[in-house]
Amino acid sequence: MINRIKPRIGLVIGDPCGIGPELIAQLVARPAIQEMADIVIVADPQIFKIGEEVAGITTDCRLVDAVSEETFTSQPLLLTTPSIGKNTFSTGKVSKAAGHYQLDCLAKALELCKETILDGLCFAPLNKEAMHLAGLIHEDELGFFRDQLGHVGELGILNTLGSLWTSRATSHVSHRQVSDLISRDSVLSAIRLLDTTVRASGINEPRIAVAGLNPHAGDGGTFGDEEIKAIEPAVKQAKLEKINAAGPFPADTIFLRGKAGEYDAIVTMYHDQGQIAMKLMGFDSGVTVHAGLPFPVTTSAHGSAFDIAGKGVASANSLKAAFTLACSMAATKMTTAV
Amino acid sequence: MINRIKPRIGLVIGDPCGIGPELIAQLVARPAIQEMADIVIVADPQIFKIGEEVAGITTDCRLVDAVSEETFTSQPLLLTTPSIGKNTFSTGKVSKAAGHYQLDCLAKALELCKETILDGLCFAPLNKEAMHLAGLIHEDELGFFRDQLGHVGELGILNTLGSLWTSRATSHVSHRQVSDLISRDSVLSAIRLLDTTVRASGINEPRIAVAGLNPHAGDGGTFGDEEIKAIEPAVKQAKLEKINAAGPFPADTIFLRGKAGEYDAIVTMYHDQGQIAMKLMGFDSGVTVHAGLPFPVTTSAHGSAFDIAGKGVASANSLKAAFTLACSMAATKMTTAV
Repeated sequence: MINRIKPRIGLVIGDPCGIGPELIAQLVARPAIQEMADIVIVADPQIFKIGEEVAGITTDCRLVDAVSEETFTSQPLLLTTPSIGKNTFSTGKVSKAAGHYQLDCLAKALELCKETILDGLCFAPLNKEAMHLAGLIHEDELGFFRDQLGHVGELGILNTLGSLWTSRATSHVSHRQVSDLISRDSVLSAIRLLDTTVRASGINEPRIAVAGLNPHAGDGGTFGDEEIKAIEPAVKQAKLEKINAAGPFPADTIFLRGKAGEYDAIVTMYHDQGQIAMKLMGFDSGVTVHAGLPFPVTTSAHGSAFDIAGKGVASANSLKAAFTLACSMAATKMTTAV
Repeated sequence: MINRIKPRIGLVIGDPCGIGPELIAQLVARPAIQEMADIVIVADPQIFKIGEEVAGITTDCRLVDAVSEETFTSQPLLLTTPSIGKNTFSTGKVSKAAGHYQLDCLAKALELCKETILDGLCFAPLNKEAMHLAGLIHEDELGFFRDQLGHVGELGILNTLGSLWTSRATSHVSHRQVSDLISRDSVLSAIRLLDTTVRASGINEPRIAVAGLNPHAGDGGTFGDEEIKAIEPAVKQAKLEKINAAGPFPADTIFLRGKAGEYDAIVTMYHDQGQIAMKLMGFDSGVTVHAGLPFPVTTSAHGSAFDIAGKGVASANSLKAAFTLACSMAATKMTTAV
């Protein structure tokens, strides 16, 4: 293993038309952030400059057109490739060129992680519409990551807020499809992914609560039987695998118990079950983790916010939390690997 | 119309084995509560006494075995019928006798409302299991109310928290059934019921937000089409009926907007969509309204809490909020009717 004092983290600019540039500029200017990691900002300098102008702050970065083991110094690096053409994008507007650029930046950052030159990634919000215009064939960036890395195995989107984690057994599917997708195996996968990832963040035996699907967790089979047929068997199997899982619990009170510190993590059955709760508990500081990859990949829980982009009002809190988590997960991995 | 200075409100004890008796005893002892309404406590004196002993407080009530126009004085009345046999119930245990007693008390209180001797009801938590043991054939008390009153027309369970209201297009049904039950008509009914009830609480033109069913409110039909086929047409029709409705909105951010005061009320599509949010925003002070009846009927959002019954630790905050709302809705009706 490479012996590093600090993790090396790639900070990817996201959609240049959104709030990404100003957030990255705000973030990287902070001494505490520079202290956490050796940083490689993946951004065309013209875009990083736009961000700095909006944020009203500058950082003394070293421009490089490639990164290798030898490139690193204590100063943040600004990787000048990939680049985006001038006048091909404008703040607050969906653009195909910006979509291509987002995918190119992600591909570059993933490549550096694959080569172990970087230990993890944190990216500013992407814009799916732009990426789809640019030819992204997957629902979201997770499929793109899989393709780029030739990754085999479970991947999933997790959310964290402070010390509370969530995973989802189903994600961007219609409400109607959810119940057909809830099986012992899909719930078990979500439990395993959450357990592995929370352990990777440094918590030894995460206490995992599994939410039910139906009102009152089905009330003993009165409204729906997924709890009995799929969720309970998944929890049982997880316990056999030495995962500290419990449930199913009624979804409308389990987040109160998580918030109170009774659990480290909650497995949810569908997108809004977790998202309603997590956004209410802290819209401003949520983190999204792309879990299952061989290195940490995090982003802010919010989107590219075209409506406020360029106005200098966007908060970097969520991205800061995402960056901090990527650093601590990479550091945990470095410690564990030694 | 009868000209009353204060509304006359029935306070029904709920399940005698739960926290109802101690909550009612706590509540009715407060001078501010006695000030709001002329109160008829519907409780067997032996049960009311148990509640007073647990709460460690007594109230000087006048015992009556029937209530008529002439019975009322400034002192709270304790209606001694229906009664429950001695040794037929015990605190913290589900009992068939307690189930019968709950239904008898509700029937009595409804009868007094129907005769316009009472202007509204507030009841302490019921226990469905006990009522089902006692022969309740309906899913919940709403069907019982319908039968007792011979009520024709829309009824529904609404929730309020502070000044924010919610209704549900579907309620105690499995997740799997929800999408089939979401139609223009079911959503429109939930919008209308919410509008009528919030108006009855004294808000003139309630601003109503309607949640979507699917993640991101379907993202333009990408995940599910209920927004396009059912919810949008319902909102459109509601607007034609001069209801100040908007939506559908993504469910994971609409509660933040409601919490911020942008809306007075939110129409939810299913039980947990609203309950996850409302319980997180204030488990302790939520109110449930049985809406659509010709008089206000409210209860606490929490249940009969057998686990803490008799311990003197239960908070009466939610029941107090429920009582206050019943009083203000009854008072609004009295003002409007004059």
